[in-house]
Amino acid sequence: MNTHIQQLLKPRSIAVVGASTDRHKLGNIVLRNIKDGGYSGRLFPVNPHETKIIGLNAYSNYIHIPEIPDLAIVAIPADFVVEAVREIGQKGTKAVVVISAGFKETGREGALREAELQAVANEYDIALLGPNCLGFVNTRQKLNATFGQGLMHKGNMHFISQSGAIASSIFDWAEHASLGFKDFITLGNKATLSENEFLEYWLQEQAKDTTLNKRFNESSYSPIGMYLESLTDGTTFIELARKVAQTNPLFVLKPGRTKAAQKAMQSHTGSIAGDDAVLSQALEQAGVIRAKSIEEMFDLSIAFSWSQAPQGKNVAILSNAGGPAVVSSDAIVEAGLSMATLSSDTKELLEAHLPRAASFLNPIDVLGDALSDRYEKALRLLLEADTVDAIVVILTPQVMTEIEKTATVVGRLAQRYQKPIFCSFMGGHLASKGEAVLSKYNIPYFSYPERAIAALGKMWWWRKWQTQAKKRKEVFETTPVATSTREHHLESIRKLLIQGQQYLSVSKINELFDDWDITTPPSASVTSLDQAKNFAKLHGFPMVLKLTAPELLHKTEVSGVITNVRSSKQLEAASQELISRKTELPVAVRKNVKLQMQAQIEHGVEVIVGVKRTAQFGTVLMFGAGGTLVELISDTNLHVLPATSEDIKQIVEKSKAFSLLTGYRGGQQLALEKLYHLIAQLCDLVTVLPFFAEIEINPVIVTKDQAYAVDGKAILAEF
Amino acid sequence: MNTHIQQLLKPRSIAVVGASTDRHKLGNIVLRNIKDGGYSGRLFPVNPHETKIIGLNAYSNYIHIPEIPDLAIVAIPADFVVEAVREIGQKGTKAVVVISAGFKETGREGALREAELQAVANEYDIALLGPNCLGFVNTRQKLNATFGQGLMHKGNMHFISQSGAIASSIFDWAEHASLGFKDFITLGNKATLSENEFLEYWLQEQAKDTTLNKRFNESSYSPIGMYLESLTDGTTFIELARKVAQTNPLFVLKPGRTKAAQKAMQSHTGSIAGDDAVLSQALEQAGVIRAKSIEEMFDLSIAFSWSQAPQGKNVAILSNAGGPAVVSSDAIVEAGLSMATLSSDTKELLEAHLPRAASFLNPIDVLGDALSDRYEKALRLLLEADTVDAIVVILTPQVMTEIEKTATVVGRLAQRYQKPIFCSFMGGHLASKGEAVLSKYNIPYFSYPERAIAALGKMWWWRKWQTQAKKRKEVFETTPVATSTREHHLESIRKLLIQGQQYLSVSKINELFDDWDITTPPSASVTSLDQAKNFAKLHGFPMVLKLTAPELLHKTEVSGVITNVRSSKQLEAASQELISRKTELPVAVRKNVKLQMQAQIEHGVEVIVGVKRTAQFGTVLMFGAGGTLVELISDTNLHVLPATSEDIKQIVEKSKAFSLLTGYRGGQQLALEKLYHLIAQLCDLVTVLPFFAEIEINPVIVTKDQAYAVDGKAILAEF
Repeated sequence: MNTHIQQLLKPRSIAVVGASTDRHKLGNIVLRNIKDGGYSGRLFPVNPHETKIIGLNAYSNYIHIPEIPDLAIVAIPADFVVEAVREIGQKGTKAVVVISAGFKETGREGALREAELQAVANEYDIALLGPNCLGFVNTRQKLNATFGQGLMHKGNMHFISQSGAIASSIFDWAEHASLGFKDFITLGNKATLSENEFLEYWLQEQAKDTTLNKRFNESSYSPIGMYLESLTDGTTFIELARKVAQTNPLFVLKPGRTKAAQKAMQSHTGSIAGDDAVLSQALEQAGVIRAKSIEEMFDLSIAFSWSQAPQGKNVAILSNAGGPAVVSSDAIVEAGLSMATLSSDTKELLEAHLPRAASFLNPIDVLGDALSDRYEKALRLLLEADTVDAIVVILTPQVMTEIEKTATVVGRLAQRYQKPIFCSFMGGHLASKGEAVLSKYNIPYFSYPERAIAALGKMWWWRKWQTQAKKRKEVFETTPVATSTREHHLESIRKLLIQGQQYLSVSKINELFDDWDITTPPSASVTSLDQAKNFAKLHGFPMVLKLTAPELLHKTEVSGVITNVRSSKQLEAASQELISRKTELPVAVRKNVKLQMQAQIEHGVEVIVGVKRTAQFGTVLMFGAGGTLVELISDTNLHVLPATSEDIKQIVEKSKAFSLLTGYRGGQQLALEKLYHLIAQLCDLVTVLPFFAEIEINPVIVTKDQAYAVDGKAILAEF
Repeated sequence: MNTHIQQLLKPRSIAVVGASTDRHKLGNIVLRNIKDGGYSGRLFPVNPHETKIIGLNAYSNYIHIPEIPDLAIVAIPADFVVEAVREIGQKGTKAVVVISAGFKETGREGALREAELQAVANEYDIALLGPNCLGFVNTRQKLNATFGQGLMHKGNMHFISQSGAIASSIFDWAEHASLGFKDFITLGNKATLSENEFLEYWLQEQAKDTTLNKRFNESSYSPIGMYLESLTDGTTFIELARKVAQTNPLFVLKPGRTKAAQKAMQSHTGSIAGDDAVLSQALEQAGVIRAKSIEEMFDLSIAFSWSQAPQGKNVAILSNAGGPAVVSSDAIVEAGLSMATLSSDTKELLEAHLPRAASFLNPIDVLGDALSDRYEKALRLLLEADTVDAIVVILTPQVMTEIEKTATVVGRLAQRYQKPIFCSFMGGHLASKGEAVLSKYNIPYFSYPERAIAALGKMWWWRKWQTQAKKRKEVFETTPVATSTREHHLESIRKLLIQGQQYLSVSKINELFDDWDITTPPSASVTSLDQAKNFAKLHGFPMVLKLTAPELLHKTEVSGVITNVRSSKQLEAASQELISRKTELPVAVRKNVKLQMQAQIEHGVEVIVGVKRTAQFGTVLMFGAGGTLVELISDTNLHVLPATSEDIKQIVEKSKAFSLLTGYRGGQQLALEKLYHLIAQLCDLVTVLPFFAEIEINPVIVTKDQAYAVDGKAILAEF
C-alpha cells in the first residue's frame, strides 16, 4: 500500500475525471488549483464533451489517456463514480481521490454506493482517498489537489483532517500566520484510506529522514496534526502512533468527550464514539497529545512547526509588564511546568544590565519603559542560563515600546541559541506588527501568554514521554508480562461459552483465582447450619455470609450480604435471615443461589481491580478506590494492556486510593507488593483466557500481609 | 467621596502639573492626549520654566491658576510629588491623579513616600488616583487622561485595571476590535482610591440610569470588567459587588491561583494574596464572574458589551461545517449550557428551507456550499424558535462561502430579535473580513467556537445568579439567621482570651455545644476504671476512649484514640493502654490530659463541619466528607457567612459527601435536617461569640436519627 500512497502524494501525472470548463464546478476548480499551484507533472483532464479545458487537451474517456496516470481525481456526480473508478482501475492507475459527495454521509442509499466503491477499489488494489473529501495538498510537489483555497507554504508538518470544513479554516488561518505544511490530507468518508495508512507511510519516510535541525542541533522532526471524528481501527492507530511519536510529535483533536458531541457526530458522519476515557488513556500511553479545542490544535501546530520541544520544564518569563507576568505564573504551574530558578550569577548579571526598579527574580520584569535593547540584554542572559529550559517573552504596547524592533531582536537571538522561545505580544494593531516579524523568524507567537505556556506544557509532556518510551522499550524486551502454564482452562471456559453461559459461578472464579495465585479469603458454600459452624470454628470469627448466584452481580443491592458475624448465635440469625431473603428472589435466579461463607478480612483498605474488553483498544485494566467509596470519589484509573510491572505500579500510584494505601491509620505499611502481584496475575489471566467481557474484583482488601480478592465477578464475552 | 470621584471622572477643568514641552516626557504626552482627544473643559499646564505649552498658557505655580481646577494630574519626579499635592490641596482641588512612579513599588523608601502622600491626601480630603498609574479615560467627556495610546470609542463598559501594562494591551486590542468603553481607570498603587470607591460611585450612577436597551427590550446594563492583583478590602468589595451585580454584570481577572503566581505578585506589587479558594467562593456568592485568563477577560468584554445575557440555557448551533459543530457540542456541555431541542414545527420548517442533505437536528448543518441566503433562512427560524435561547453561528471559509454577506445577514437579523447571537468565523484573512462586518453590528465574534460558547456560559451563569439573588434578598429579609440568647458566654470566653489561652478544653466546647443545641454523643471524663465501667453500663457498648487536652488537636496522630471497645474486659485493656501512652507525651501537655469516654456512634456517615475566620472575607463555613476520607477526596466546600438555611442546604448538596449521605447502604434515610440544624447552630455560635480563629467538628456522624458532633476543636483568635 505504501507505494500506492507514494503515487498518490507524489504523482508524476494526474488525471482529473470530471474536469470542466465551468468555473463553478469542482472539476474545474481542482484542475485550476493544480495548474496554478505550479505542479510540474503531466495533467490530463477527462470530459466526454470537451477537447480543451483551461488550455489543456481533454480526453473523452479515461481509457484514451496516452499513459497510465499515477493519480486520478474524480469529481463527477455520485451516481457515476463507481463506474468511473472501475475504468480507472482497469487502466492500471493505483491511486484515486474521490471528491464527489453523496455516499455514506447521506444515508442508506449512499452507504450502499460507498460499499460498491470500496469493493471496486479492493478489486483493483486501489489506494482511494475519500469519497466526500476536499482532496489533499503536497507542498513539496507544489501540488494543490483540493477544491479549496489551497495552501502552498512549505513547512515541516503533516496534517490529516477528516473534515473538509476544518481544513478550509486551517488553510485560511495558516495563510494568515505564514505557517507551512509538508502535506495536508482530508480523509472524507475513509472508504479505503484512513489515518492509519498515512501514519504508516510517514513512519517509513521518517526512517529515511535524518536531516539535522540546525537551530536546535538535534534531528529534525515532522509534527503530525490530526482532526479525527472517528478512529478507523483504534488498536492499529495506537500501535502506529506509538512508533511515530518516538521521533515525531503527534497531536489530535478528537471531539466526542461529552454525550452531546457524540449525538452530534452520529447525525453528522455516522461515527460511533468509543469510550472516551479509554481513548484518552490509549492516546496518552502512545505519546499522542490530545488537543481539547480547535484553538489548542492551532496553537500546537505553530508550536511544533516552529520550535523543538524543551529539554526541561523550567521556564523563564521576560516581560515589560508585571500583570501579565503574574498571570503567566499561574499558567506555568497549571501546564505542568516550573518557574525556573535563576542562579545567583544570572541574577547578578541581570542586575548589572537592568534598571534598579526591574525585577530580577523570575518573572523578569524589564519595566514599562523598556526599549528593545533592554529586552535583548535580558533575553541573552536567559538564553545562556543553565537553569532555564525555555523562555516566554511577553510584550505589552506601552508608550515607548519598540514593538517591531523587539521582535527582530528576539528573532535574531533565537537563531543563535538552542532554546525554545515563545512570544506573546498582547494587543491588537500594534501588537500584530510585531507578530509579523516574529512569524518571519519562525518564533511561535500567541495572542495570550497563557496559550503560549499551555502549548509549551504539551511539548514538554511529549518530551518526557519520548524519554520514557525509550526506557520502556527495553522493559518490554527484557521483562515480558508474566507467562503462564494455565492453558488447560481454555477448554473448560470454551465449553461454558458454547453452552451460552454469560457469567462464571463463584466456585469457577475461585478456581481460576487459585490457579493464578490470586489470594481469596477462606470461603465455602454451606448447606446446613452445622457446616457453617464448623467452617467458622476452623477459620475464626468474624465471618461474612452471602447469597451467591452468577446472576447476582450486585449483592448488596438485594441485601444478600451480612458482614460482621461475630458469634455462633449471630451466625444462626444471619443464615436464617439470608434463607428468608432468598425466597424473595425471582424464581429463575433462586435455583442457582447458594449460601456462601467467607472469613471477614479486617484492618485493610478496599480497592477495586478490573479488566474490561473494549471494541477499539483491546483489554483495559482499571484500578481505583473500592467498597462504598467507588462512586463517591470517581477514582477510575485506566491502562490499556499490555502492562509491565512498572505500568502496574504507576496505575496504583496515580490513583486517589494510593493515599489511603500509604496513609493507612497509624502509618502501618500495607502489602502493596501483593497488590501489584494480584493485578499482574489478573492481567495474565485475561491474556491467557481471552474470553471475558469483564472481570471485576471489588473489593480487593489490602492488609499488612496480603491482598485478598474478596469478591470477583466475571462476565463472559459474546462471540 | 462620590462627589470627588465625579469631579475626577467628569472635570470641568484640569491642571497638568509637570506639563512639559518635551514630547518624550509624560507631562507632555498627557497634556497632548487630553487636548487631542477633544476634551472641551479648561486646561491648565503647570510648569515653572514655561509660559506656553502646545499653545496653552502655562502657569509657573499651581497657586497662580485663575480658578480652582476640578482635577489635577501630577506627572513630576517622585521626590516632588508630596509637596505638589499639598499645594493642590491648599488651593482646594479635590481630585488628583498621580501618574509619577517611584513609590511603594520600589521598596522601603518609596513606601514611606507613599505614606506621606496618603497623609496629605487625607488631610485635604482629596480623592487621589495612583500613584504609579497610567491615568484614566472617560469617553463620554472625550477625556483621555492617560499617557497611553488612549481609547476613544464610546461604549457601555466600565473597566478598572490595577496594571497599566494590561491597560495598554486592552487599549490596543479594543481599538482593533472597535470595542468601546464608558470609562477605563488604572489604579496603580491605590494609595487612597481603590476599586471599591469606583464600584460605589457606579452603583449610585446606575440607580439613576434606566435607559432601555432597544435590541434586547430590557433595561440596559453597563458591564464592569476588572483586572486586580489585590483586593483592598475584601468584605467591602464583595458587599458592593453583590449590589452592582444585581443589575450589571461584573467580571474580574485576579491572578494568584497558584503559589508561583503569589510569589510573582509579592515581588511585583507587594500584594499578599488571600486564600484563593475563599476568594473564588466569595466572588461566586456575590455574582462576580472570575475570568481564568487574559483571553477570557477579553472575551467577556466583547460578550457583555455587545450582548445581553441569554434568558435560558438552550443553545442552537448553526454551521456550514460538521466538524466544528461537533466540537461545539462538547463545549456547550462543559460551559453549563444545553443543546436546544428543536420543536417538530421548527424542524419541519428547516426541512422545507434547507437542502435534503443538511442536518435539521441541533447542531444545524447548512452544508459546505451554503450561501448567505441559506444561513439567513435557518437563522431566522432559530431566532423565532421558542426552545432556543441563544444561537452560535459558525462559518468556515469554503469555496462558495459568502463571508461578508453572511456577516451582514446575521447583523441585520440580530437587530430584529431579542436573542443573543454569537459568531465564530474560523480562519485568517478571509474570516477577518467577516469579523469586521460583525463588529459594525456589535455581534460578539470569537476566533474559535469554543470561546464563544464559554463566554455564553458565563453570561448564563450570571443570569441565573441574578434571578436567585432577587429571591435571596427576600430570604434575608424574612428569615434572619438564627437569633440567640447565649450572650452570657461572651464574658467567660473573653476571660480565657485575656488569660492568653489558645484552645478551648473539651468540657468548654461541650458546654457551648450543649447551649447551642449541637448534639454530642454521651461522654464523660473518667479518673478511675470503676467510673469508666459505670459510664459504660449507663450508655452501653461500644465505647470510644480518648486522651484529651486542648493542645492535642490531632488525637489519632498520637494514637490517643481507641475505638470499638465492646466489653468490660476490652475497656480495662484500653484504659491501661491509654494511660501508658500518656506518659509518652511532652510534660507540658501531659498535665492537662484527661481520659475521656464517649459512646460510639455506629451506622452513620462521617462528615466535617468547620468555620474559619479569614482576614479578607470574614468567617467562612466549610463542609465536606469527614473521617479518614478528608484528605483522600478533597471535598472542601465553602460558604462565606452569613448563611441562610437555603445556603446551608446547598453547601451540603454540592459536596461529594452528599452522595454518601443519600446513598447510604441499603438506601436508609439519614437525618439530614439534623445536620442542617447543627451547621446553622455552629454558624450562630461564631456570630454570637466572635472570638474564634477556627472551630472544626470532625467527624460529625450523621445517623438515621441524629447528627452527632463527635469531636470538636476550637482555636481562639489572636487579638
